[in-house]
Amino acid sequence: MTSKGLIFKLSCPDAVGLVARVTGLVAARGLNLAEAHSYTDHAARWFFLRLQIDAGEDGDALAALEQDFARCAGEVGATWSLRRAGQAPRMVVLASKETHCVTDLLWRRKFGELQAEIPFVLSNHRTCEGVVAAEGLPFVHVPMEPANREAAFREIARRCEEVGADAIVMARFMQILPAWFCEQFAGRIINIHHSFLPAFAGADPYRQAFERGVKLIGATCHYATAELDAGPIIDQEVVRVEHFHDLADLRRLGRDCERLALARGVRYHLEDRVLLHGAKTIVFRD
Amino acid sequence: MTSKGLIFKLSCPDAVGLVARVTGLVAARGLNLAEAHSYTDHAARWFFLRLQIDAGEDGDALAALEQDFARCAGEVGATWSLRRAGQAPRMVVLASKETHCVTDLLWRRKFGELQAEIPFVLSNHRTCEGVVAAEGLPFVHVPMEPANREAAFREIARRCEEVGADAIVMARFMQILPAWFCEQFAGRIINIHHSFLPAFAGADPYRQAFERGVKLIGATCHYATAELDAGPIIDQEVVRVEHFHDLADLRRLGRDCERLALARGVRYHLEDRVLLHGAKTIVFRD
Amino acid sequence: MTSKGLIFKLSCPDAVGLVARVTGLVAARGLNLAEAHSYTDHAARWFFLRLQIDAGEDGDALAALEQDFARCAGEVGATWSLRRAGQAPRMVVLASKETHCVTDLLWRRKFGELQAEIPFVLSNHRTCEGVVAAEGLPFVHVPMEPANREAAFREIARRCEEVGADAIVMARFMQILPAWFCEQFAGRIINIHHSFLPAFAGADPYRQAFERGVKLIGATCHYATAELDAGPIIDQEVVRVEHFHDLADLRRLGRDCERLALARGVRYHLEDRVLLHGAKTIVFRD
Amino acid sequence: MTSKGLIFKLSCPDAVGLVARVTGLVAARGLNLAEAHSYTDHAARWFFLRLQIDAGEDGDALAALEQDFARCAGEVGATWSLRRAGQAPRMVVLASKETHCVTDLLWRRKFGELQAEIPFVLSNHRTCEGVVAAEGLPFVHVPMEPANREAAFREIARRCEEVGADAIVMARFMQILPAWFCEQFAGRIINIHHSFLPAFAGADPYRQAFERGVKLIGATCHYATAELDAGPIIDQEVVRVEHFHDLADLRRLGRDCERLALARGVRYHLEDRVLLHGAKTIVFRD
Repeated sequence: MTSKGLIFKLSCPDAVGLVARVTGLVAARGLNLAEAHSYTDHAARWFFLRLQIDAGEDGDALAALEQDFARCAGEVGATWSLRRAGQAPRMVVLASKETHCVTDLLWRRKFGELQAEIPFVLSNHRTCEGVVAAEGLPFVHVPMEPANREAAFREIARRCEEVGADAIVMARFMQILPAWFCEQFAGRIINIHHSFLPAFAGADPYRQAFERGVKLIGATCHYATAELDAGPIIDQEVVRVEHFHDLADLRRLGRDCERLALARGVRYHLEDRVLLHGAKTIVFRD
Repeated sequence: MTSKGLIFKLSCPDAVGLVARVTGLVAARGLNLAEAHSYTDHAARWFFLRLQIDAGEDGDALAALEQDFARCAGEVGATWSLRRAGQAPRMVVLASKETHCVTDLLWRRKFGELQAEIPFVLSNHRTCEGVVAAEGLPFVHVPMEPANREAAFREIARRCEEVGADAIVMARFMQILPAWFCEQFAGRIINIHHSFLPAFAGADPYRQAFERGVKLIGATCHYATAELDAGPIIDQEVVRVEHFHDLADLRRLGRDCERLALARGVRYHLEDRVLLHGAKTIVFRD
Repeated sequence: MTSKGLIFKLSCPDAVGLVARVTGLVAARGLNLAEAHSYTDHAARWFFLRLQIDAGEDGDALAALEQDFARCAGEVGATWSLRRAGQAPRMVVLASKETHCVTDLLWRRKFGELQAEIPFVLSNHRTCEGVVAAEGLPFVHVPMEPANREAAFREIARRCEEVGADAIVMARFMQILPAWFCEQFAGRIINIHHSFLPAFAGADPYRQAFERGVKLIGATCHYATAELDAGPIIDQEVVRVEHFHDLADLRRLGRDCERLALARGVRYHLEDRVLLHGAKTIVFRD
Repeated sequence: MTSKGLIFKLSCPDAVGLVARVTGLVAARGLNLAEAHSYTDHAARWFFLRLQIDAGEDGDALAALEQDFARCAGEVGATWSLRRAGQAPRMVVLASKETHCVTDLLWRRKFGELQAEIPFVLSNHRTCEGVVAAEGLPFVHVPMEPANREAAFREIARRCEEVGADAIVMARFMQILPAWFCEQFAGRIINIHHSFLPAFAGADPYRQAFERGVKLIGATCHYATAELDAGPIIDQEVVRVEHFHDLADLRRLGRDCERLALARGVRYHLEDRVLLHGAKTIVFRD
């Protein structure tokens, strides 16, 4: 279902009565829940909640509800967020030479599958410039040479801050991010790795898969962290391969996995359906 | 997660504050929610809820909670049920000549995947008698000839009533049920049809699939209703087939689909994870 | 593996020694087989063969081989074809309002997944005009009103004949083809139907699927014949859906099925990997 | 299709005319090919062939054909084998505490999915003794303590040699094989590992998967080699998991992957559908 109204996310130590307490705040304001998802990690004794609230334009009512949430969250020791679904999140797209993921994201945005503003697409190559221009979006070219990598990332960081990026999507952006960059945008950087992680982390995973002779190849959409290809996984996709598929076939078949896993992961993130918990994600799918 | 404590299900017309109200009853009794699932069908304006409640053995407390639920359900016009998860539901299994589904269900029960008491397995053939005996379960043989069909079904109905069957599972029971039987046990009869319904309803679906030349075959687990193969679908499973698969191959590959879809559907039903709504099911999966 | 050299296809009544005989012709000319696929339908006593032959540019040698094949095929009563893989087949694309399938096909062609010349993309709407223009391909607009349908199809047929179309791909072309059109281009018209046929043939299959409450939706790539949605199936794709997916979600999830099944089916056809046999296809996949 | 007649497998350096040459030997004896599969690994310049030949009971004719194959294989430097499909291969099953894989294999054998003689099932525990006895098969108990491991494996090896085992299936046999055992039975030991290798090799893969937070878990059927979990992969299976699946759920869902991947891998091996090439398998599926 398309997001609308308000999206509220909360995570905190488990306790008796949390669902009743938080949903009670919404009911007390006379508002309806379009969706309500909760999950308790019993081993970790942690509670996760996502509410999608039908809400009108009455600014005072919303401000009051926000205060209710803030007070309650403080009392239960929660991390929380509240967003008006009408305010499309801002998504920066980073790409390198390969354009299939960028193309796919832009296509899905045009057709309403992804609801985001894209302030710019940035690449260290120019291969996707035409695709980006065709969508009427700004293209930023930031060349990356060993000598200027640090400066280049500082420029990217500056631009992302400038536009207030809610999501930084690495659409086959083939550069290893500096640790400081990962920390600065923690929980907002989404990468697509072209293997079913944790198998074949690192360089050239299709070649690794080909040489190992696996019968399934895949792609993994995950949050980027300072440790390469080790961040929390949002979604994965696989496809069967057989002995007669050579390396070029693996790349071809894998591209569809990449596009599907990335599109789903980005969609979940943009709709605030992902909650982070240590090395894992809670994904309240739609 | 394995069911424990209490399972509460409710469905009613949608209204503001339902989640808060019902979960509030649980919180007021100081009980914890192990799982909470809700869903609102916005088009139908209908609300569905399933709560799994950690509850001890205090009979008075539970009786009090049950009264709370009853009162609330009455006020919101809800259909509801409450079950102690510790009380294993009673599952009658009906079979005919083929034994793979019976065998699979008994195996999963032995290993704790399905938590049910099986008062008896009943068949119009004797092929599964050995398998049933090996599990130490009663086997009932009810032959079915055109002349005695009606009497046979009356016997089956009598036996099911006698044991208070919560589930009547047609594990490739190849007999068309009388309409009165479907009505008497409405919402408790689970069938596995060996095609991805609504394709290939009726007789010999693998032959139908083979002749049509489909590239995917499947199986459908659904509630049986008076209209053949048209009841609410609980789960489906498919597998790819190719031109070199003959009819025997389709039956072989299909058996795995049947076993998987049936096992999942039965599990959801036994754990009270399925809510019926007209021709559809709401399945709060685990 | 990318097609190169020659592609030879043959089907005929089964007989002893067919593989040896036909591959012997290739060996006798000193040519290597890049791929060899055969299949015998034992029930129908019919034999199917596809050879991919590494072959150079020596026109005389190729002409000689072609004569060998022709003589042999005559003797065994075979239907056959021989094509130089280097000669990209000509693919006409027909579209209506929805553009996701057209966009996907053009994208895959640009990246080498589909090797075809596209003489033009034709639509009864103008929604894909921009996408087609961006690829530098001719766009033909043929409006379709009840009054001019017959004339419109005659124009389409004339244009397809003019360019010698090897494939006419209905990329969500939402018009029912006249029977004469299906016959004129039999075995060359590929349609994508947005359901897992034979379920939900005809109009608005996602709505049919939604109302039936299925737990899997799909798409079917098939050859179009005079009987609507009943032609030989090339490939199918499915995706799981749950109770919380509304009709818009089904359309969204289904679009990915459509794109995948269509792309695979078209690819198999363009690489001469599909052999027709009555209502079925033999698909020698790569 | 069920195997019958003769099964011939060959692999050798690629050369012009190999398919014609070998199939010509069959045709010259007037025999029909029920199935013919070939594959050329162009990078490795290696050729693989599997023929299934309809053949009667004429011992002289078969001996003559075998001589033809032997001569030809000698000339092209091939590894090859010839087997009468009627002679069911002998399959030894090794198990430990968990019984789901053993149960599944025995069930599939009873229903004709796996055609093998089982001289005995051997385990270092007694949990599957009843299941094995119920099938009327010999059960051998070989306890394994650190002190007697080497002696125990020598006993297993002796018993396997004694019965001429064509397949030694580790149906969740949780013991690391000595290197000498792997070498003695190279290409005949089939293991099921409960992860999608190469991810989560080694101990307790479901726990590893759970802790990593993957969204797909799987199982891998592979030939055992001296290097743990690194042998050639025959087949793999995966299933989606979500944040609400705890470790027990992963084990439950994984069991179905294990059973499916193992059953397919064993079936391919028993029908001589697998050819080994270095670290990889060629699998001519049916």
